[in-house]
Amino acid sequence: MTTLVFGHKSPDTDSTGSPVIWAWYLNEIKGEKAEAVFLGEPNTEAAFVLEKWSCPKPRIVTEFDAGQKVVIVDTNNPAELPANINDLDITAIIDHHKLVGGLETAGPIDITIRPLACTATIMVDLMGDDADKMPDWVKGMVLSCILSDTLEFRSPTTTDVDRALAEKLAGELNLDMAAYASEMFEAKSDVAAFSDAELIRMDSKEYTVGTTALRVSVLETTAPKLILDRKDSLMAAMPAVAAEDGANEVLLFVVDILKEEATLLVPNDTVKQIAEASFGCTVTGDTVVLAGVMSRKKQIMPNLKA
Amino acid sequence: MTTLVFGHKSPDTDSTGSPVIWAWYLNEIKGEKAEAVFLGEPNTEAAFVLEKWSCPKPRIVTEFDAGQKVVIVDTNNPAELPANINDLDITAIIDHHKLVGGLETAGPIDITIRPLACTATIMVDLMGDDADKMPDWVKGMVLSCILSDTLEFRSPTTTDVDRALAEKLAGELNLDMAAYASEMFEAKSDVAAFSDAELIRMDSKEYTVGTTALRVSVLETTAPKLILDRKDSLMAAMPAVAAEDGANEVLLFVVDILKEEATLLVPNDTVKQIAEASFGCTVTGDTVVLAGVMSRKKQIMPNLKA
Repeated sequence: MTTLVFGHKSPDTDSTGSPVIWAWYLNEIKGEKAEAVFLGEPNTEAAFVLEKWSCPKPRIVTEFDAGQKVVIVDTNNPAELPANINDLDITAIIDHHKLVGGLETAGPIDITIRPLACTATIMVDLMGDDADKMPDWVKGMVLSCILSDTLEFRSPTTTDVDRALAEKLAGELNLDMAAYASEMFEAKSDVAAFSDAELIRMDSKEYTVGTTALRVSVLETTAPKLILDRKDSLMAAMPAVAAEDGANEVLLFVVDILKEEATLLVPNDTVKQIAEASFGCTVTGDTVVLAGVMSRKKQIMPNLKA
Repeated sequence: MTTLVFGHKSPDTDSTGSPVIWAWYLNEIKGEKAEAVFLGEPNTEAAFVLEKWSCPKPRIVTEFDAGQKVVIVDTNNPAELPANINDLDITAIIDHHKLVGGLETAGPIDITIRPLACTATIMVDLMGDDADKMPDWVKGMVLSCILSDTLEFRSPTTTDVDRALAEKLAGELNLDMAAYASEMFEAKSDVAAFSDAELIRMDSKEYTVGTTALRVSVLETTAPKLILDRKDSLMAAMPAVAAEDGANEVLLFVVDILKEEATLLVPNDTVKQIAEASFGCTVTGDTVVLAGVMSRKKQIMPNLKA
């Protein structure tokens, strides 16, 4: 049986590159049969990266038969995975997020979670000396995952291991890393084609503070104006998105990659109170700028208070 | 803050040796402050192993303050850990059991789970070249963990990696591995001092098949007669143990290490039906012999049927 390798339902670059990288490793190095698949449409940056490295776009699969062999990468959260995930034959998990609980396996399997900036970095470590066999397109995918998840080393999630690996790969690929990162972020910032609801759900995680169920959405961009110009209609779309997804509120953070700050949209008093309690800021209008905030994992989630 | 390293509540040799090995690694190689502790009394084999390698017996700790830094080894099951485990600062998990679900961490941490026979083998792999620095007593602990969890390579959980590491270490220690394993199993078989309830709970895991909550207990021994001679009183003790622990039934498997078979005690019709449905055997009396069955993980748990 071919093993299907996938990340979470809203594929960003790491959740696109990591399945592709690991499927390459399983096929070419381990001699197993594996295929990278998507659980949903990749974002515009991920689509750009696939094209840049001439990597065929994985097909989207949303239904899996019980017993299907799968490798889960870049998440361990059942909410971000197929509904019947625990009925599948999970053979490995490779991730860099906190342990959420909820995934179960029939027997002992390979699980590797490390506090590194991106899943692809962990994969290269797991490959050991075999990583030297990566062809350029696989190296390019690894580099792209690191640049994306670290926001070109600006995010506080960046570790020395991620940075050293990225620099090594850029050297081997003879690539101008800064120019390439700019191209990636430009692709990610090209969000004109998306509806407000699609934007809100594009990079979003569920989180509960106190009794308030939140949809915590982040849009990383080098062109925040494109999004902030739409703030009224984005805020108008939030109640319906929240209701559909079983959340009470939407927190939408527009992360300005270059200025290294986030703008939070504040549609109502509940979000205003959460913002002031969580970030020690004073909200006067319908947005608030949070200087230095770039990482949901390190700076947003741990600080959220009701 | 000193990191406390511990295994599960009923320390066998792997859950005794692994905390000691990892605390050595954190202290001596990583330059961190760490202490191996027990969550309960070690079994007789584990106590013998500690003495054999002149390793001071870790203290027993049963209450932990919220925020205490801990490393969990040889389990990922909250039921086998302190009640407030998710309020502690878990910094790493190293294990070789199936993912149970239920543990949660505040942020991303180091988690390594591998389908190897024992946790100590995984630790040596994680140490990389630093494993060469293990002093003899640490090598002895690793070897003991492997021999214990593989029943000297008889258990189907044994992998080539475990076996090769054990043989390498025995060579470096200039130790007669077979003779040492016999000594260990003799120590494990010395159970005269334990009450029936203590024996039932000594190496036991909770498991639910259908609607029946089971306490699945295994006693590995080279002297099964010592235990089977007590079968009437063991069976008489089962209802009270089950009731106290919130289980419906106790399945007690007496594993004969040398004959490579398990004898299951059959105190009533419910257990008889489970035995016949699970193992395709016919039960005529109050015991049934299951040829070749040595491993709860590989041979008992996956086959249990209501």
